Amino acid sequence: MKVSARNVFNGTVASLQEGAVNAEVKVALGGGDQLTAIVTMDSAHSLELAPGKAVTALIKAPWVMLMTEHADIRLSARNCLTGTVKTVEMGAVNAEVTLTLAGGAEIYSVVTKEAVAELGLKPGTSATAVIKASNVILGVPA
Amino acid sequence: MKVSARNVFNGTVASLQEGAVNAEVKVALGGGDQLTAIVTMDSAHSLELAPGKAVTALIKAPWVMLMTEHADIRLSARNCLTGTVKTVEMGAVNAEVTLTLAGGAEIYSVVTKEAVAELGLKPGTSATAVIKASNVILGVPA
Amino acid sequence: MKVSARNVFNGTVASLQEGAVNAEVKVALGGGDQLTAIVTMDSAHSLELAPGKAVTALIKAPWVMLMTEHADIRLSARNCLTGTVKTVEMGAVNAEVTLTLAGGAEIYSVVTKEAVAELGLKPGTSATAVIKASNVILGVPA
Repeated sequence: MKVSARNVFNGTVASLQEGAVNAEVKVALGGGDQLTAIVTMDSAHSLELAPGKAVTALIKAPWVMLMTEHADIRLSARNCLTGTVKTVEMGAVNAEVTLTLAGGAEIYSVVTKEAVAELGLKPGTSATAVIKASNVILGVPA
Repeated sequence: MKVSARNVFNGTVASLQEGAVNAEVKVALGGGDQLTAIVTMDSAHSLELAPGKAVTALIKAPWVMLMTEHADIRLSARNCLTGTVKTVEMGAVNAEVTLTLAGGAEIYSVVTKEAVAELGLKPGTSATAVIKASNVILGVPA
Repeated sequence: MKVSARNVFNGTVASLQEGAVNAEVKVALGGGDQLTAIVTMDSAHSLELAPGKAVTALIKAPWVMLMTEHADIRLSARNCLTGTVKTVEMGAVNAEVTLTLAGGAEIYSVVTKEAVAELGLKPGTSATAVIKASNVILGVPA
């Protein structure tokens, strides 16, 4: 598989919490980093998701929000992953920012260039990637 | 908190409708503007959402669709917010468009530059921002 | 209606599967192409969705992921639509890629320019558009 999503994480299902309609899946990425995904129960059954199963988590870079100085707020988004800015590439309207998480995973985000200025993002600064669990697509080997 | 999302709205919870899995939260932005968010019941409990509570609604600009001449269609999206174009900034592929709503709230959208041409968007024209309720992230003071 | 979304598909409801909270709607696009959308049951009732009803499906280009060489993976996303690349327009950070599906429908995607290089996307190559059903907005005539 080759995919346009900048974020492709190979991991294993750490836990699966089934609901009436959706399932919440926690994916261990290795190195201690973890992602939470929400998929429909139909998908959970179709992909035969279960603890220990190898999965790939896909997230497009524009679906990743960045945040700094967030001690004063708690969010509804399940994934708030703090790391260090590795690179910033500026475009005309947008910029691509990569973070390295504590466990070594790298997260790509596309944000506006104003956001880069306002948050003071540059290599070495701390930032938190915010990702809604419903924006994580899961894949399993065919 | 500093956040890359261009849309950061401070408001109060106007109503909370609980479901089996998700909650629908209406947020009054002041000036009469209102946003609808869908969060999981887990998040609603964790953030202790209730009518009157102060919340911050976060929406990334690429999640906002723009529409004009929409008298002939009704959409599944909960948020259809009509306003006036304030600014248009063109990039190579994308453009950032800001709308001012009736109540004074400003909405940022990133759309393709072809869309700007097709919709004839320029300062002063009327346009409607379409936002799925599930793309609104809510935050509360920590 | 004029809309910033690059993907505007007119079709008819092929099937509607009701759940407790959400409904899964299959939309026939003509030519054999089909899209799956997830909307809330409230929206399904409000729009009076039923098999045979004319609907418009709206999808912003940044919500479309592209994939190649995908024989080795199965995804949680409901829409995996294989087609042929028609055009690639490069920007500073992003690129806009259009696919033509077997049935004739055209899909627009905005991906990073690195993705275009990695996937080797150019006119004539085969690629699959991956779209989460919850990212499809449905409209009906007012």
